[in-house]
Formats: sequence, structure tokens, C-alpha cells
Amino acid sequence: MTPEHGAPTTGRDPLAALWSARSVAVVGASDKPGSLGRLPVEFLQRYGYAGHILPVRPDGAPVAGLPSHASLRECVEQHGPVDLAMVMVAAPRVLATVQDCAAAGVPVAVICTSGFAETGEAGAALQDEVVQAAREGGVRLVGPNCIGSVGVATGQVSSFSPLFSGERTELVPGDIGFVSQSGALGYGAVSLAFERGLGLGWVVNTGNEADVSAVEVMRALTLEPGCRGLLAYLETVADFEGLRAVAAAGTPVAVLKAGRSDAGARAAASHTGALAAGDRVVDAALRQLGIVRVDDVDELLDVGDAMTARQRPTGRRVAVVTTSGGSGILAADALEAHGLEVAVLSPETLRVLDEIVPAFGSTANPVDVTASVMSNASLFDRALDVIADDPGVDVIVACFCVLTGKDVDDVVASLARVAERSGTPVIAVRTGADHLAPDAGAQMRAAGIPCYPTPARAVRAAAALVQFSAERPSAPAPVRLSGGPAGYAAEAVPSTGASEQEMKELLAAAGVPVPGGRVATSAQDARKAVAEVGGRAVFKAVVPGLLHKSDAGGVIVGVTAEDAGAAWDKVAALGGEVLVEELVPGGVEALVGVSPSPLGPVLAVGVGGVLTEVLHDVALRVLPVDRDDVEAMVDETRLGALLSGVRGAAPADREALVAAVLRVCDLVEGWPAGFELDLNPVTVLESGRGVRVLDAAYVAPTDPSDPSAPILRQEA
Amino acid sequence: MTPEHGAPTTGRDPLAALWSARSVAVVGASDKPGSLGRLPVEFLQRYGYAGHILPVRPDGAPVAGLPSHASLRECVEQHGPVDLAMVMVAAPRVLATVQDCAAAGVPVAVICTSGFAETGEAGAALQDEVVQAAREGGVRLVGPNCIGSVGVATGQVSSFSPLFSGERTELVPGDIGFVSQSGALGYGAVSLAFERGLGLGWVVNTGNEADVSAVEVMRALTLEPGCRGLLAYLETVADFEGLRAVAAAGTPVAVLKAGRSDAGARAAASHTGALAAGDRVVDAALRQLGIVRVDDVDELLDVGDAMTARQRPTGRRVAVVTTSGGSGILAADALEAHGLEVAVLSPETLRVLDEIVPAFGSTANPVDVTASVMSNASLFDRALDVIADDPGVDVIVACFCVLTGKDVDDVVASLARVAERSGTPVIAVRTGADHLAPDAGAQMRAAGIPCYPTPARAVRAAAALVQFSAERPSAPAPVRLSGGPAGYAAEAVPSTGASEQEMKELLAAAGVPVPGGRVATSAQDARKAVAEVGGRAVFKAVVPGLLHKSDAGGVIVGVTAEDAGAAWDKVAALGGEVLVEELVPGGVEALVGVSPSPLGPVLAVGVGGVLTEVLHDVALRVLPVDRDDVEAMVDETRLGALLSGVRGAAPADREALVAAVLRVCDLVEGWPAGFELDLNPVTVLESGRGVRVLDAAYVAPTDPSDPSAPILRQEA
Repeated sequence: MTPEHGAPTTGRDPLAALWSARSVAVVGASDKPGSLGRLPVEFLQRYGYAGHILPVRPDGAPVAGLPSHASLRECVEQHGPVDLAMVMVAAPRVLATVQDCAAAGVPVAVICTSGFAETGEAGAALQDEVVQAAREGGVRLVGPNCIGSVGVATGQVSSFSPLFSGERTELVPGDIGFVSQSGALGYGAVSLAFERGLGLGWVVNTGNEADVSAVEVMRALTLEPGCRGLLAYLETVADFEGLRAVAAAGTPVAVLKAGRSDAGARAAASHTGALAAGDRVVDAALRQLGIVRVDDVDELLDVGDAMTARQRPTGRRVAVVTTSGGSGILAADALEAHGLEVAVLSPETLRVLDEIVPAFGSTANPVDVTASVMSNASLFDRALDVIADDPGVDVIVACFCVLTGKDVDDVVASLARVAERSGTPVIAVRTGADHLAPDAGAQMRAAGIPCYPTPARAVRAAAALVQFSAERPSAPAPVRLSGGPAGYAAEAVPSTGASEQEMKELLAAAGVPVPGGRVATSAQDARKAVAEVGGRAVFKAVVPGLLHKSDAGGVIVGVTAEDAGAAWDKVAALGGEVLVEELVPGGVEALVGVSPSPLGPVLAVGVGGVLTEVLHDVALRVLPVDRDDVEAMVDETRLGALLSGVRGAAPADREALVAAVLRVCDLVEGWPAGFELDLNPVTVLESGRGVRVLDAAYVAPTDPSDPSAPILRQEA
Repeated sequence: MTPEHGAPTTGRDPLAALWSARSVAVVGASDKPGSLGRLPVEFLQRYGYAGHILPVRPDGAPVAGLPSHASLRECVEQHGPVDLAMVMVAAPRVLATVQDCAAAGVPVAVICTSGFAETGEAGAALQDEVVQAAREGGVRLVGPNCIGSVGVATGQVSSFSPLFSGERTELVPGDIGFVSQSGALGYGAVSLAFERGLGLGWVVNTGNEADVSAVEVMRALTLEPGCRGLLAYLETVADFEGLRAVAAAGTPVAVLKAGRSDAGARAAASHTGALAAGDRVVDAALRQLGIVRVDDVDELLDVGDAMTARQRPTGRRVAVVTTSGGSGILAADALEAHGLEVAVLSPETLRVLDEIVPAFGSTANPVDVTASVMSNASLFDRALDVIADDPGVDVIVACFCVLTGKDVDDVVASLARVAERSGTPVIAVRTGADHLAPDAGAQMRAAGIPCYPTPARAVRAAAALVQFSAERPSAPAPVRLSGGPAGYAAEAVPSTGASEQEMKELLAAAGVPVPGGRVATSAQDARKAVAEVGGRAVFKAVVPGLLHKSDAGGVIVGVTAEDAGAAWDKVAALGGEVLVEELVPGGVEALVGVSPSPLGPVLAVGVGGVLTEVLHDVALRVLPVDRDDVEAMVDETRLGALLSGVRGAAPADREALVAAVLRVCDLVEGWPAGFELDLNPVTVLESGRGVRVLDAAYVAPTDPSDPSAPILRQEA
């Protein structure tokens, strides 16, 4: 993996210099023991980096035993191209150093220095200047406020993390990449990965992400041959297309995204000074792309271990094989919690197991083979074989407690042989202290069997493995419904301040059903309008800025021709127009909305009407979506159950709702970024009777240059 | 803790023999190396047990170098009372051995042998015989199908777990008790506790629990001086009063209860052959008693570590102090997820922190003091001091990444000093490999500072600590409402097959409001009845066995005097009586029910009406409850939000609902076990207008000897 010195870098992603540079310059190097400016120079030597290590300091004095250079230009003159510069000078000198990088043709500068956007406005302004200089000079910037990167195979520890000072620290090579916005937490997690034996190939800390984002680094890593999985710690996500490209590459990806809570999100914003998409939007985007999201460092590394499994599942049906009833039950509980299925074993499998398993065990899944079978290699082998070959089994989770030294060799050999032969992935659980079988972990790892200390953790990792093996969604093409009216899309952009009635006309033109009706201009006209819509009507006030019409007495339901005059007077008194609409019978009330986010317009579909605020039950997707997405959104929320009919109610017209949602997506496709559309309630009538959008609100973009405003309403 | 040999055991719980017996007999002992019948004899010697070790085998041959005895009687004759017998003979000989225990006056027999209820009906029958013999002979039985117990302070390893064969296994003494139904998983967890340095004082495995339950052992442990916390792994829970006694003792308790899922519950039932309360009932019971429930072995041990904290919080406001922004965000996320509060620091605290923390850190909670402050002992001390003294802070979570050897001493000294001085508990997080600071864990532990590898785990443990410090609920006295009608309770037991109308009369007599109305005996009578209830009525079929009246056309709403004849004819055609009721206006629909469970009658309160099956949003409590419980149940469900008024609706009469629930609890108190009562919907009208029970169903106990039937309906 070490590039040959002098090999051309043409065609390579310049970011590959973060892990396989031909030369690393350390600008602001120092000889003072323990100083940050000395550590990378020491580390590059200690971990066997074979490229040029080029300390840069004005006085040219040696650093950690190596000669230094007065400038980047001098480095290039004496040693050829510099692929990577670590910039460790004080904040006020960073701008000039980046300009030096540009002048010397250094393609990537890692700005370790802090004191930029994370400190407030002045720092942010300085950061902007530095970025501009970099862009002008053709230099890619990593950081500022970061701790550097590591190429494990090349020994390129271009980092000053204290991890690498540890007397007993060794790099553990592997084929997983690790990208972290946070330096300290990231390298802490890396140390935990190495400690558990999870080998990494690439480690990058992106800090403030003034230029290069973690997502871009991940994308570059998907191009590295041999990269089998990516783990990332992220605080902000703003690049949906980048994420989509990462996902499309097919490399398994797991993300620990911090900032789920309000307090966490505030802290994340102040930490990096970045503008972030709301957590629920990020959540939806990750799920949409098949990226596994985790909630803790342990969990991230557990999924990393799962990525090292040699076999991949073809489904979600899990057989649990255990030597302890307790572990089996905990595993079964976890299967349900993580959306996996307890495999139903075939009669033939059960028959064979019945011969093998003693009476105090259990042949039903979870299969408790008992410790006595486990300690008999040929019986254990046979039990595993028959389970692995059962066509109803996609994954085996094998649980052991207090595995002791003498059992380990046979057990590992069995698990590895069966997985290899059958192609069924095996995940092991060892709920017992390491010292009872000190080699077990390494043996399992060498055999490509991920191993966890508890059943729940193993099952969670298995669920990630199943998700990685599922078909990757590609970007759906914007939907064009064949049955839809044509020719409206380009022009049909609502005007700023569009009224409910205008929005309904626009929706109707796009094939989204709204109640029949019109504005009535007088009490007399209202009587006529009521007759037009069938004799019973809803009167609604159309008053700009009046958001909660019902509360203000601006909605009267069930108006007859007789009451029409009085009703018109009452509603007109609110100061706007009076909309007279067809009385739509009761149905299931849905919500359909589109809101802006830094990741693009976000579609919301969920439970609407009076239950909106009680349930907060809304599914989100970043647009574009296709029919499958919308169907999944309905099923993710209680809307699915409501539509299928509860307590004797007839099933509602789900098909019409899905069609209406797709037409809405179609309609908004050409709208300028930053708008918000809120259709609520959308009444879904009995099957075959369609839907009606009872209320429609539109908020025009307040500032087209800031696509994050207004705030996504569903996230409140 | 070791009892003096020959000391009288009078007044002591006989179960204390599980950890501090004066003598342990091993019946079925064997000299064969590695045999289960030899291991306890070896272990008792190896771990320094000072009492008599008495192998029993018919031929009297030595076992592991110790002389053996031909019978228990001989043991007693030669060495005085035997406090504990481990029974390791084959299943068919267990009955006779228990009879021998009785004859020899052995108070506690641990039946290690398997082949009983866990194997099926024949085994269950044999188990019943053994239990009966034990009861007749005054012997308490632990097991069968168990691995024994350990007294750590006494070195009493009366167990054959392979854990104790480990070359490097050492007992780690401590003041936490560990009780497990599962042997293998239990001892696996114990080995993990010892590995992380979590000391235990007592370990008991209860197996099939034919006689002694884990709950009873826990109760005995609460009486042990020095026991500071209890951890338990349970598969079945059937003894609510026992659990209540454990909780009432005030010792912190955490339970890993397996069988959350259907598959897990089935496996648990087949594993021990026991009848268990449904998981949701257990969940409610544990919460009700202030017992912390966890979902994984890691989590159980994490809470065990929290129990060792020297200080206890007085509230739930947490200050996060970190040297890494990332850790702070993850901690804040976890605080929200676990119901803790992000403490709001006082202006004075912020002012002082502003002097200490550099610009690239953060003074707002989470407080990012930065690594530079951490490595300056006096600055770090000062920051911690001011935070600990802030009256708005109840707990400090201190996060470190890649803590290295040279930092540890100062950091630990600061944390320990501040916790000790201020009384504010400090919980530490070290997200970094052990080898970077190998002594850190032990130093933290010695200082009484629980330490975790990730922020999320630390916060979860902090949440448990907060829960332990909350006031313990004592058993509420059955509610007697002063305003309720008197004299009905004793007699007011519904008849088997009581109709809706009968139930409503019974409820009305108990002060639970139902709609006005009566049975109409003819079309003509129906017209009269409609007039009596105000001119608009609901007609309902009262047909025994007709559960879904609406689906069958047995409910007609809004009947006027004019329609009454036709409506009567239609409803009467269903073959039963016709109930004419007052038309109750719309309101919030609640559900109130009482169902049987092995833990006693369970009260359910939640969202009713058409949303019942869509939301499954019901809070449960084992009876009796008090007003605070009922208020909490309303708030646990969305009923709370619905009652407070959504989308412009007026607030509903929550007070009347709570009063009605209490009256229902009062009413059912004398009813025979096993009944089921289902009031749904209970319409809650506008504030001040009360509630009406619109439908009431009663199911009489099917078999009074089996309190588990019928199955709790809310659990479906």
C-alpha cells in the first residue's frame, strides 16, 4: 500500500495523501520534548513511515534528530513534491502558511491549529480567509482544529494524538477506515478499536471541516482498494449528495452521529461553528441510504467488528445456538428489538437436533445444545451443520458463557468450518472473562468470526450486517406520474403569501384532490355556493397570517343554505375572504409536508389532524423519493394501521394517499429552495373514494441564500 | 463475615448458609479429576473456605484429598450441624437425598442435578415430589438445575462453575450481591464483574426455583450487613410482595429481566418450566418499586459500578465536564435519552469558568475545559470546585479521552477530592485504551468514582444512581375515597356473565359515572326511554358473548323519539336486551381496566376508544395504587396530552377521570382473584363535566386456582 517514492499521483484523489503521502512536511515543528510541534515528527519515525519526514521551522534547527527546512519551498526543492503539510503554527500565521502551501504546490494542508470558527465570530472570519486563500491556491484544507490522520499500512502517523505516545501503543492493521470530526474522541475510539483487536487501515480527523468534510474523506476511502468498511463519528452532516455517493460505492458504513438531543445539537453547533441539518433529517437520510446509525462508541466498534465477518447474510432469519438458556433468551429478546426474525427451523433440522441435544436442552430456536454437546466436538459440529444448512436460516448467533481454555480450539474450529462451508455467517458471543480463554478472541478474529461479550451486542451487530447486505437504494429518479396532468410543473410555483385557496387551486391543477368550493363574495353568494357543493358546506376564513383558523372561530362546519348568510357574516368579520367548501365526510387524517433542510427538501408523511401534536408520528425522507419510499413512510408511522381500518372502520384509500404524495413531490420539484409546504389534514376517505386536502399552507423561502430557514416545522 | 464455627444460627435466615455456612456437604462427591462431583470440593479448598468441607459418597473414599462420609447423618455425628448440602446425585436419587437432608437436620439443600421441570412433564412431576418431601422435612431447596452459590468473604465457593477452574481466577471481594436464575450466564457475568474490578460479596444461582426464588434470596441479602446493592438476572417473576419487601429494604436493586420478546418469553418458559408474569407487567412492577431494569449484561454491571459511588445525588441535574467536545455532545444526548437534565449553570459559575476555560473550549454545560486545563491541576481543580458547588448541579459526569499515564494521578485526585468535599457524586468517562493509563481504573475505583468507557454508558449509570436516590415508594394503602357511597364494597361482586347493564349499575352504585338509561322492553317503551334521557339516545344490544357490538350493528347513535321504534326493532333482532342510554357528547376516550397476573391484579389506564389498538398506549400498575400512581399513569401515556386539549379543544376533566379510576380500584378490591374488567371507552368530558363509562365488560375468573387465566388482554 505504500506508494513508491516518486510514483506519479496523477489520477489519485489528493486526499489519499492523508494516509499514503510520499512526503509529509510539519510546518511549525519544534524540538522541545513533548511539544505538539515535535510529536508528529517523532511518531512518523516511531511507526516506520518510509516517506520523507520534513520538519519546517524558520531557523532550520533539527527536530527529533532530523534536519529541518526553513520553508516548504526548500522542502520541494530538495526532496521533490510534498503531498501533505501539517500546519502547526499559531492561528495568526496559518493564512500565510496556506499561501506558502499553494506556492510550493502542496495539494493538502492539515491545519491542526485551533482558534477558528470554534471560538466565535472573529475566528470564523479568519477561517473564511484561510479557506479562500486555499481555494485560490488549489490547496485542499483539512481542519482547522484537528489532530491529523494515520495511514496504518504506511506507518504514516501524521498526527499528534497522545495515543501514539503510549509506551505500549501499536498500530493494529486492518481493512476498516475510521473518520471522525472530533479529534480527542476519535483517537480515543481508535485506541479502543486497537485494544479489542479491531484493525484499522485509515484514520482521519476532520475538525472544523472548513473545506474537506468527513463525508468527502469517506468518499475518498471508498476508492481505496481493500477498504471493507467505514466507521465515522460525525457532529454535523450537510452534504446529502456526498453521503449518497459514499453509500452508492457499496462499502458498509456505520455512523455515530452526535447531537440527537437539543442540548447535544446546541453543543455540536458551538463546538464546530457549523450549520447542521436537524437530527431527525439526518436520521432519515442515513436510513434512506442504507447507512447504519449507532448511538455509542462501543456500538460503532461492534459494528466495525461485524464488518470483518467473512460471510454475508442473505436475509434476516437468525438461528441462536447456545450453551446457556439465559443467553438464548437474551438473544431472542434482542432479535425482536432489532427487527430480525427468530428463524423457524425445519422439521428435518429439529429431528436431527432431537438426536443430539439432551432433554434438559432445547431444540427449538433458540437452540440450547447444552455445555455437554459443546464439549463434544463431533456432536457440536453436527448440530451446527444441520442448522447452517437449514434453508430457513440466514445467520447463526452462537452464544457461550465462561468459555474456558480447553474448549476454545474445538469451538472456534467448528464455527469457522461451518461458516466457510455453508456460507452462513456465524457471530459468536462469549459472556465470560478474557483470562479464562485468553486466545479465544484472537482465534475468532483470525477465523473471521466476529465475537461479542453479550448476546444483545452480538445481535445488534448482526442486524447491522443484515442491513449492509440488503440491496442498496440508488437515487430514485424524480417521479413523473403518467396519469398526471401535464404542463403545469414549470410555471406552478406559488406566489409569496399564497392563500389557502390559491394553494388548493395549484394542487388541484397538479392532480392532488381538494374539496370542491370557491370564495363566496357575499351572504347571498354564499347561499349559492353552498348549493353548488351539495347543500352542506364548510365555511373557512382566508386571512393572511391567520394560522390557527379553528381557534379564531374561522371555521364553521356543516353549514346549510339556510345558515349560509349568518355563517358568511361571522367568517367575513375576521377580515378576509370566505371560502365555501364541500363538506368532506370523516376519514383518516394524514399530514403531508415538504420542508427545507441543509440536505435538501425533506418530505414528511404521517398522522395529521387533531392527533398531529399528540403523536408526533411523522416519517421523513430527503427528496427525491419513489413509490416504495412513500409506502414505507406510511408503514413506519401509525398511519399504516389507521388506514387499514381500526375498531370496525372500513379500510381507507391508501393508494390514493400514496398517489397524492407522489404528485406533491412531482409538483414541488421545480420550486426554489427554502419553501415550506404543509398539507394538514389530508382526509383519506374509504377505499375507492380518494383523498381530499382540507388545508394547505405555504411559506415562501425567507432568504434563498440560507436554505436552512425556516426551521423544519416537524422537528419542533 | 465468616461465622465462628459452632456459633448459633438461631434468628439467622437459613438462606445465609448459601454464603456463610459453617459446613458444606457435597452429596454425590467424586474423586475423578474434572468431574462435577469433585469441583466444589476443590474450589472450597482453593478459595480458602474455613468451615468443614464434607464430601459424601457411599463408599467413603477420599475426594480431592479430603476424607469423605458415607451419609449426611455421619457428617452431623462427626462434625456437628451441616448448614448446606450440595446435592449432585443423579435425578432419580435426589428425592431420597432430600429426605436424608431432612433426617439429618440440614436446613438448605442446593440441588445441582438437572432433569426436572426444564425437561418436561415427567421432570416437573419428579420436581414436585422433591419439593413436597423438602417441605415436609423442613428443608429449603435451591434449584434444581443450578450451579450453586459463593460467599466471597468466606471463600465459600459451593459451586461447580468452570469459572473457578480458571488458572488466573481470583475472587474480587466487594459489597454487591449477584443473584441469577441462569447458572452459566450468571457465572459468566460474575467473571466479567471480577474482570472489570467490580467486587461482589455474594453470588447465588437459583436454577428452576422449585422452592427458593431469586427474589427470596435477594430479600435475604438485604439483611446482610454491608450489602450495598443487588444485581439480578431473572427469567420469571411471580412474587410481587417479595419484590416489594426487597425494594422496601432500601438497598439499590438492578434487574436484568429476560423475556421481553415473545420468542424470549417462550424460551424462558420452556427453560425453567415456570409460569411467569407477562413482561409488561413485570416492567410496571419493577418501575413501581423503584427497581432499575436493564437490558444487557454490560448494563447490569455498569449499574453495579454505579452502586459503588461514595456520594448520592439529590436530584437529576447533571453537569458534564469534558476535555473533548465530542464526548460532551454524546453525554448531553444521553442525558436527554435517560430522562436526566442538563444542569443550567449559575451566572457566577459561568463567570469563574470564563476565566479558566480557553476560547476554543466552552463554559456552557457541557463544559469543555479542554485538555490544556485538564493538564493544569490547579486550574482543573478550580473548575471542578465551582461546578460542584453550583446549587443547580446534582451530579458531575467528567469525560476524558485518551487519558495517559502522566495525567491520571492528578485527575483522579481532583475528582475524588471534589466529590468528597462537596458531596456531589462524580462519574468518570475514559474513552481510551487501558494500556495508556493502566492504573487509572483501579485508582478511580479506590476513590469511589465509577468510571465507564463511553459517555452514554456513564450517563445511563448516572440515571440509575439518580433513581436509587429517589424516595422509595412504600405500599400504598388501598384507597378509600371519602366522597364515595358506602356499604357496597363487600357485596358488590359481579355475577359470572354480568351484562353491560349490570356492570354499569354496579359502577354507578360505586360512584363511577355511567350514562343515564335503562333497558327498554318494547318499541313503545323505547320511545319513553328516549324521552327520559333527554330526547337523543344511544341504543345498544345487550347480548351475552357479543364482544364487538358495533361491528354487528348492535349500536345506534343519536336515536330520537321518532326513530325509537325502528331502532328498538333492529337492535332487539340481535336476540338480547336493548339498552337505551343518554347520548354522551364527544370527549377524550380513555381505557380503564383491571386484569389478573401472577403478580396480582393489574390496573391499566390509557388511550381508549378507536385509538386503543392503534396506539397500544396503556400504563400498568400492580394494585393497590394511590392517587399519585394514577396521575403518573395518565402522564406516562398520551392520555395526558389528549386531556390537556389538542388543536384548540378545551381541556378535559382529568380530575374526574383520576377519581373514577380510584373508585374502580376501590370497588374491585374485594373481588375474587382472576377477574378481568374492561371499561372502554371512558369518555372524559370538558373540565368540570365529569366522565362517563360508555362500555363495561367483565370476565369472571375461569379457574380460581389459576390466577394467570385469562391472559392479560392489554398484553396482546
